[in-house]
Amino acid sequence: MHDTLVVIDGTQYSNWDRGIFEQMRDGGVAAVNATIVYWENARETLTRMAEWNARFERHADLVMRARTMDDVLAAKQAGKVAILYGLQNCSPIEDDIGLIEVFRDLGVRTMQLTYNNQSLLATGCYESSDGGVTRFGRAAIEEMNRVGMVIDMSHSAERSTLEAIAISSKPIVISHANPSFFHEAKRNKSDAVLRALGERGGLVGFSLYPFHLKNGSRCTPGEFTDMVARTVDLIGIDHVGIGSDLCQGQPYSVLEWMRNGRWSKQTDYGEGSADNAAWPQPVSWFGSNADFPNLTAALVHAGFAPSEVAQIMGGNWMRILRDAEQRR
Amino acid sequence: MHDTLVVIDGTQYSNWDRGIFEQMRDGGVAAVNATIVYWENARETLTRMAEWNARFERHADLVMRARTMDDVLAAKQAGKVAILYGLQNCSPIEDDIGLIEVFRDLGVRTMQLTYNNQSLLATGCYESSDGGVTRFGRAAIEEMNRVGMVIDMSHSAERSTLEAIAISSKPIVISHANPSFFHEAKRNKSDAVLRALGERGGLVGFSLYPFHLKNGSRCTPGEFTDMVARTVDLIGIDHVGIGSDLCQGQPYSVLEWMRNGRWSKQTDYGEGSADNAAWPQPVSWFGSNADFPNLTAALVHAGFAPSEVAQIMGGNWMRILRDAEQRR
Repeated sequence: MHDTLVVIDGTQYSNWDRGIFEQMRDGGVAAVNATIVYWENARETLTRMAEWNARFERHADLVMRARTMDDVLAAKQAGKVAILYGLQNCSPIEDDIGLIEVFRDLGVRTMQLTYNNQSLLATGCYESSDGGVTRFGRAAIEEMNRVGMVIDMSHSAERSTLEAIAISSKPIVISHANPSFFHEAKRNKSDAVLRALGERGGLVGFSLYPFHLKNGSRCTPGEFTDMVARTVDLIGIDHVGIGSDLCQGQPYSVLEWMRNGRWSKQTDYGEGSADNAAWPQPVSWFGSNADFPNLTAALVHAGFAPSEVAQIMGGNWMRILRDAEQRR
Repeated sequence: MHDTLVVIDGTQYSNWDRGIFEQMRDGGVAAVNATIVYWENARETLTRMAEWNARFERHADLVMRARTMDDVLAAKQAGKVAILYGLQNCSPIEDDIGLIEVFRDLGVRTMQLTYNNQSLLATGCYESSDGGVTRFGRAAIEEMNRVGMVIDMSHSAERSTLEAIAISSKPIVISHANPSFFHEAKRNKSDAVLRALGERGGLVGFSLYPFHLKNGSRCTPGEFTDMVARTVDLIGIDHVGIGSDLCQGQPYSVLEWMRNGRWSKQTDYGEGSADNAAWPQPVSWFGSNADFPNLTAALVHAGFAPSEVAQIMGGNWMRILRDAEQRR
């Protein structure tokens, strides 16, 4: 069955190095949608991409850039891991709708409309008031639909997310989050959001980030797969995937950047707290890219059919991203 | 014979609009290497590209973006004009060698190492002292060779140009300039430069900009084709092309931007002078994109064989740019 698996992880932001790329290969990962930015503006985003180019050049035997899902399959064939580009914020487009196509040309496949805070496009999940999708947001959704950039509402608030699902003419994703029924958290999603997402053909990528899990770092594979099964019952097997949110090897300074960007002089602890500020301890059975087989095994153990496991582990991401390509 | 012509203009910076695109079509232009920037930094270059995307969307029946020479042929097949991207300065890469590949990914085919002034890479043709290719310049040439971005020394000084030709492992271009033997001007090129260019497989694109022509705006087709013939005698038929330097419909403010950028508070008149500050009057037989057939006819009239005319009018540009693609 493993031969038919094309493992695609919908979100990672690791401290990329050769060791991590080797783990990806050893873990049978076909492609990772790598987060390029959290708060970076247009110019800074170009530097993040130049850093990726340097990695592709230096580790050409292990990783390659993928602009299309055909590139992903070609990478797998060549025994390499494919890297896709995803943005966890709309900061790269600044106030210019024209930059959506420019970044699409640079290979960006997914873009979040918000990262925790209010953005120019929509409201983030940490705001106390959610005004929904803004005027610029509506225009941006239409443009993203046109150029084939997939809308990602992982870090967005409820109303904004429901509106984005309704406005978008194409399926959208929540690349990395879990259902609120599994674990109540600002970053997790209500049944209403998940149902609307599935009804419009979208996808939720299940997160392994401890703050999104029941019992946090002690969450068991069985608890995780129970969540998967219950979500499949709610929205169907076609609408679920993995967005591990792995942040391997990142220093605390990166967590601070993710949480605070340049927008606050006070420390914001995000999903943590002052007395629990550090990176959370990963679950014992999923701490690195080498552990993807544990995820596959857990799904098999939970009774999912081979074809269902293949859909969850990457097939659904393949469909969504491939469909977006054809819209150009 | 026209059926085998693929007309490629190596340089234009027009005030692009539907009328100009229609003239391109009517003039049988297959592709134009459109100047994207003169002094723009990385961020501003993205905006220039977004503006092109808007033109491609609005005038999709007339023009299309071409990333490859196969795209150029596909555009011609579809009855559309192909637009290639060229930079007349290295300002978009700022101080970051990594941005060369990023802009190559965005479709940039040619980049000048300088625009009149000293740059971080080399010396421009208006400086009084030419220190040659800089340390960053050597690194940039190597990187441009690697990613298939063609080095363009149109606005560079003599020593810098000779060094760039020698350093580059790939043929380089002088996309728009004429020989000094035809008309003495800071922007025109010595026999030594032209010979070295040709010996390393490069190309000079003949300019129709009056300041580069003998007798300026009164230059005749015969004088122009005599120059072409004498250059062919000097460096060979494989190493010449057209780089018209057409700047149709541009206001004076654009000429000021080209001349002064942000680097001087005093007006610099470039190739003009205080009492001749405006855009020069084009030659009567080449004032717009609709006039390319006049150029072809003049070459035929001058006795060039059909295959030679095809090389001059675009075939040599096709070879250089196609070869650059294969180097990626």
